[in-house]
Amino acid sequence: MEAFSDGVFAIAITLLILELKVPPLAGDATLGPRLARQWPSYVAFLTSFATIGIMWMNHHRLFTLIRRVDHGLLVTNGLVLLGATIVPFPTALVAAYLGHPGQNLAATVYSATFLFIALAYNILFRYASSERRRPRLLRGDPTEPDVVAIRAQYRFGPVFYAVAVVLSLKSAVSAIAVNLALALFFALPPRGGAGES
Amino acid sequence: MEAFSDGVFAIAITLLILELKVPPLAGDATLGPRLARQWPSYVAFLTSFATIGIMWMNHHRLFTLIRRVDHGLLVTNGLVLLGATIVPFPTALVAAYLGHPGQNLAATVYSATFLFIALAYNILFRYASSERRRPRLLRGDPTEPDVVAIRAQYRFGPVFYAVAVVLSLKSAVSAIAVNLALALFFALPPRGGAGES
Amino acid sequence: MEAFSDGVFAIAITLLILELKVPPLAGDATLGPRLARQWPSYVAFLTSFATIGIMWMNHHRLFTLIRRVDHGLLVTNGLVLLGATIVPFPTALVAAYLGHPGQNLAATVYSATFLFIALAYNILFRYASSERRRPRLLRGDPTEPDVVAIRAQYRFGPVFYAVAVVLSLKSAVSAIAVNLALALFFALPPRGGAGES
Amino acid sequence: MEAFSDGVFAIAITLLILELKVPPLAGDATLGPRLARQWPSYVAFLTSFATIGIMWMNHHRLFTLIRRVDHGLLVTNGLVLLGATIVPFPTALVAAYLGHPGQNLAATVYSATFLFIALAYNILFRYASSERRRPRLLRGDPTEPDVVAIRAQYRFGPVFYAVAVVLSLKSAVSAIAVNLALALFFALPPRGGAGES
Repeated sequence: MEAFSDGVFAIAITLLILELKVPPLAGDATLGPRLARQWPSYVAFLTSFATIGIMWMNHHRLFTLIRRVDHGLLVTNGLVLLGATIVPFPTALVAAYLGHPGQNLAATVYSATFLFIALAYNILFRYASSERRRPRLLRGDPTEPDVVAIRAQYRFGPVFYAVAVVLSLKSAVSAIAVNLALALFFALPPRGGAGES
Repeated sequence: MEAFSDGVFAIAITLLILELKVPPLAGDATLGPRLARQWPSYVAFLTSFATIGIMWMNHHRLFTLIRRVDHGLLVTNGLVLLGATIVPFPTALVAAYLGHPGQNLAATVYSATFLFIALAYNILFRYASSERRRPRLLRGDPTEPDVVAIRAQYRFGPVFYAVAVVLSLKSAVSAIAVNLALALFFALPPRGGAGES
Repeated sequence: MEAFSDGVFAIAITLLILELKVPPLAGDATLGPRLARQWPSYVAFLTSFATIGIMWMNHHRLFTLIRRVDHGLLVTNGLVLLGATIVPFPTALVAAYLGHPGQNLAATVYSATFLFIALAYNILFRYASSERRRPRLLRGDPTEPDVVAIRAQYRFGPVFYAVAVVLSLKSAVSAIAVNLALALFFALPPRGGAGES
Repeated sequence: MEAFSDGVFAIAITLLILELKVPPLAGDATLGPRLARQWPSYVAFLTSFATIGIMWMNHHRLFTLIRRVDHGLLVTNGLVLLGATIVPFPTALVAAYLGHPGQNLAATVYSATFLFIALAYNILFRYASSERRRPRLLRGDPTEPDVVAIRAQYRFGPVFYAVAVVLSLKSAVSAIAVNLALALFFALPPRGGAGES
């Protein structure tokens, strides 16, 4: 299952570049300004790249804890992968609409996609770490630093992305900035641990 | 062989999102209604995502039983992969034509693709579990619950998808609904077993 | 190296479907004839799918014999992968031009791509099985049935594809038919062996 | 982590072909000249294919030395993958603008992308081979021929690509030629070693 999930993350992160469009030939030397005017595409690309990258790292870290895969885990993992495969669409939406009427809705759809993914991770983690299933599905102890760190990160993720969704109603740019900041923040080394795997 | 098949499933499921088109910039704030009008794209995307996801789960479960791969298994597995790679095309067809003249034909092509895949799985499973090849190719006993459950699911799959094909002649929406319902139904945990793998 | 190669084959075979275009909405019920008129796309898709599938099977079979990978093997394998990644382009060319002026050139480019791949396989196999490198790189004996069968297939492949190239100058349809026939022929079980792997 | 990286490289190298466009049907027999006029696309495709191929080979060779993965390695590796996923965009830019006004800027963006990747490799390698982290992260001895060869190649890579960036300000064609030559040069067998892996 991890190979399949890795494949989906790797493809989703690589497909993002297809949303970056080459400005059509204009016959004069204005390529520079026309490339510069596409800045929302670059911001959206980088934010989505960083977010999917972090998602993959979290997925990878979670699966080092998993001992056995049952049907429910396959299905809840499917929700996470659904979120990951969707990302190129809201990314293209933000790339096209940032700076134009409709940008707030585009930023809302974008942030809501990440909120959905954060919630899907929570469902996956709660499923695997429930009292009843933990002994069968998870490796190690519920008080282990890794499990505690993952649980904390998973608990706060949805809150942060919900903030981005609310912000997007007022300001598209701030919402995207929050999403990018979240990805960079999650890319920091985990506190209090070597973070080896 | 399983790595190659996993790769094809992972790519086919991730390419589906490329069929979701960003509405062209209109210069006014009508992005919301224009996104809403694309609902057939979302339905087709979700149905295809769920169906390829289930196909992968079945493929994965089948290959836990397979001990050895011969030439015939490579070729019959190729038929299943052919079906999986085709899915983005009928998905785009349904996304474009649902609610327009031609929608019934689009739904027929869509349902027929899934019927083809269900038949290909049957050919693959019958090939591997035939009297003559079973001892060489399969692990375990023909009366094992897993083998019995897979055989039952494989027997009924084509019948259900044939019903969707027939329905599509009358009503495109009902045919798509049946396809979605089938994917959700197959995502339920297998009866009478923990379904661990 | 095999994981990377498998990935490239899996992606190239799955990208083929992106060349199948959905006919634009016409507002009337003529979807059927417009889908039918796209038959060259379907033929080109199936031929390329079968050919890449066979290429992957051959690659897989060859790599069961390989014991060690050196720099030259990486580079000659890169030629094979170059051929595989190119396939979607001539496939789209044939899909667009079959039945139109320029179809012969399209079929020549298509057949020449497969000829290139067949030659690349020969270079790869000759490199690995040369007197000097065989003991280090290959597993098993040069007189083993598997090695003999692979060598025979590799020797004849370029000849057949060269015939298709020559045919394409006269008749695009015959050249495509020969390419499809070759893929189906290579999909037959290898003579005189169980073909297990 | 290597499986995920291999996947990203394999997808980025295979997506390059999507930038090769089939000339639109013109109804006359001018396909040949129109295909020939697309030569910048073929040059850009081949250069990018060779460069990503070499990047993957280097990545693969580097990871045979890595014993353990920590958080910093995941993040610096992410920079390399970011570079690899971007490649199809500047490739398409060069394909569209070579021979037209704006070609120098296109070649600058193209060369700068490869400079970025070369720098990212340096950051990754320096991180893993720093005094403090080496014993934990790397296998083997800092004076081993493989490590010395990698370090030399990594040291000179950015210099060469910086030359290509500077050249691109004067001549787009020379800059692309330097990039292609670098890829072919790095494809030569490593001096003084069998280069086995």
